[in-house]
Amino acid sequence: MNSNFDLKIEFARLSKYINKSFSNLFQHNKNNKLYDAFKYAIEGGGKRIRPILTMISAGAMGLNPENAITPALSIEILHNFTLLHDDIIDNSPIRHGIPTVYKKWNNDIAILSGDMMIGYAFKILQLNNNFDSGTIAKLTNTLSNALIDVCLGQELDIDFNTSNKVSFDDYLKMIKLKTSSLLCCAVKLGLICANATDDVVYALNNYALIFGIVFQIQDDMLDFNANNIKFGKKLGQDIFEQKKSFPIIKSRQLATEQTDIDFIEKYFANEIVPTEEVVIRFIKIFNKLNIPKIAENTIASYIEDAKKHISILPANNYSKMLDWLLHYILKRDY
Amino acid sequence: MNSNFDLKIEFARLSKYINKSFSNLFQHNKNNKLYDAFKYAIEGGGKRIRPILTMISAGAMGLNPENAITPALSIEILHNFTLLHDDIIDNSPIRHGIPTVYKKWNNDIAILSGDMMIGYAFKILQLNNNFDSGTIAKLTNTLSNALIDVCLGQELDIDFNTSNKVSFDDYLKMIKLKTSSLLCCAVKLGLICANATDDVVYALNNYALIFGIVFQIQDDMLDFNANNIKFGKKLGQDIFEQKKSFPIIKSRQLATEQTDIDFIEKYFANEIVPTEEVVIRFIKIFNKLNIPKIAENTIASYIEDAKKHISILPANNYSKMLDWLLHYILKRDY
Repeated sequence: MNSNFDLKIEFARLSKYINKSFSNLFQHNKNNKLYDAFKYAIEGGGKRIRPILTMISAGAMGLNPENAITPALSIEILHNFTLLHDDIIDNSPIRHGIPTVYKKWNNDIAILSGDMMIGYAFKILQLNNNFDSGTIAKLTNTLSNALIDVCLGQELDIDFNTSNKVSFDDYLKMIKLKTSSLLCCAVKLGLICANATDDVVYALNNYALIFGIVFQIQDDMLDFNANNIKFGKKLGQDIFEQKKSFPIIKSRQLATEQTDIDFIEKYFANEIVPTEEVVIRFIKIFNKLNIPKIAENTIASYIEDAKKHISILPANNYSKMLDWLLHYILKRDY
Repeated sequence: MNSNFDLKIEFARLSKYINKSFSNLFQHNKNNKLYDAFKYAIEGGGKRIRPILTMISAGAMGLNPENAITPALSIEILHNFTLLHDDIIDNSPIRHGIPTVYKKWNNDIAILSGDMMIGYAFKILQLNNNFDSGTIAKLTNTLSNALIDVCLGQELDIDFNTSNKVSFDDYLKMIKLKTSSLLCCAVKLGLICANATDDVVYALNNYALIFGIVFQIQDDMLDFNANNIKFGKKLGQDIFEQKKSFPIIKSRQLATEQTDIDFIEKYFANEIVPTEEVVIRFIKIFNKLNIPKIAENTIASYIEDAKKHISILPANNYSKMLDWLLHYILKRDY
């Protein structure tokens, strides 16, 4: 390990490398709305977590992370495709502080540009001459499985909005499909590039699965934290979208006062019209039931588990970075 | 060549083989709306032209057509994904006489099920153990290019609705992307399975390009033929959708009477509210300008051209079938 290796600087360097690679991809102005929307979505922001996971997973297994750039771009494109379609489905007008694609253009462009992006995600996998066709076939298979899973996850998430039977296990199942699937895909793509063994794939898959769960629990908690409401989001947006998020599901499990139980049951049955008062009442229940602390402990326990999984990796700067990333995502201000 | 080989019977046999393969794919009831919509779309109908093109292209090059079943299923799935999304975009409530997916379920399910189907289209390419990874990589690349093109074609088609500068060349460009791209993909997938040489790929690509153009011109003409309006379609539906279809573009080129010219120009400028009277007036103009005959001659000339392209194929039952298919599509009653 190079002791001068600064994880934060390396994260920024990889992020820059990814953005530069996208610039190269977009350098030919195609003068076409679908390309414009594709470019707009990719350049609109995001921390590049998934492509960086691809690159550092490869790096942890001794490959130069830059050699995994094509699958890294693929997974970021696939992630952005999901945003284009999900934003239509969820009626989300703003992302990263700017209008979403369906809002800036229209639904048709957002649907078609998203579809086209899937084509590019698969096409880009073919563009690295350093990979033999066996590697490319494996990368393709991994990407197609993630695409199927992420759609199933989004469908489950929509279903939850009208279901009053959402347990914590259901919640985890949904998160695994909706959030973790692309993160698991990201690490697997990197490991395929590095020809990693099955036990490493298994370990890093578990790491990414947990990464998604931690990410989502934190996201669900931030939704009720006034200090973290940014970019046009409103406090308790999940309530307005009738989501069954982590603090709401946990409150249902833990509530003891009858008025709280009745209120929560009514929410699950979609019998409560979402208002700011409803959000405030939920926040009070969360605090009463110690949900913020429970979330913190749950996250800490998951992170411990994730650390165990990556302990089998060779000790190097990139395996250290996988560990560091678990903490990095908890400090995010987006 | 086997003289007992009946093209129509073989077409039916391949079609049945494809449907049987889909049944096997769907045999595990997944109890999920996205799968239900996927199954519903695939089993809802269609002549299986694209997968049959894949199988007989492989057959023409000496491969058992059944060996090309996985890419055949892929292209049919990709075709059906385009229908799910296009039906949302075009507000088409009926297809093959039954409600379209977005109408039977809703837009969210149609978007997500379509997305998931893309995942399956790519995944199924991996499922044939007889193909080496080089073949699979080529199949994947071909499928991803077709996916990109078909999205660009649909976007161009939408753009034409609000553009008054649609020439016949523009029309052809759009058809090549929107209709021919998946047909070209279909034949290429079959040829990749059969390890065909570049000149054969070039020839059959041209054949499929023309196949799409002929298909579309005929489709555009059928739209104004009262005898062929079926399955809930209304006479002159293209007019109601402000399409610039073959007879309309040709009429613009050929009209000489000032009142006709003014009327057509107004249509192109979207200044005419579509009504049944507008449709009747267009049909009168078409007849006056001899457009049905012109369409017939145009199609005949394209078919001659397509026949030349496939003349380089080895003489066998499946190359004969490619020839026969050109005429078969002209007799369609759908």
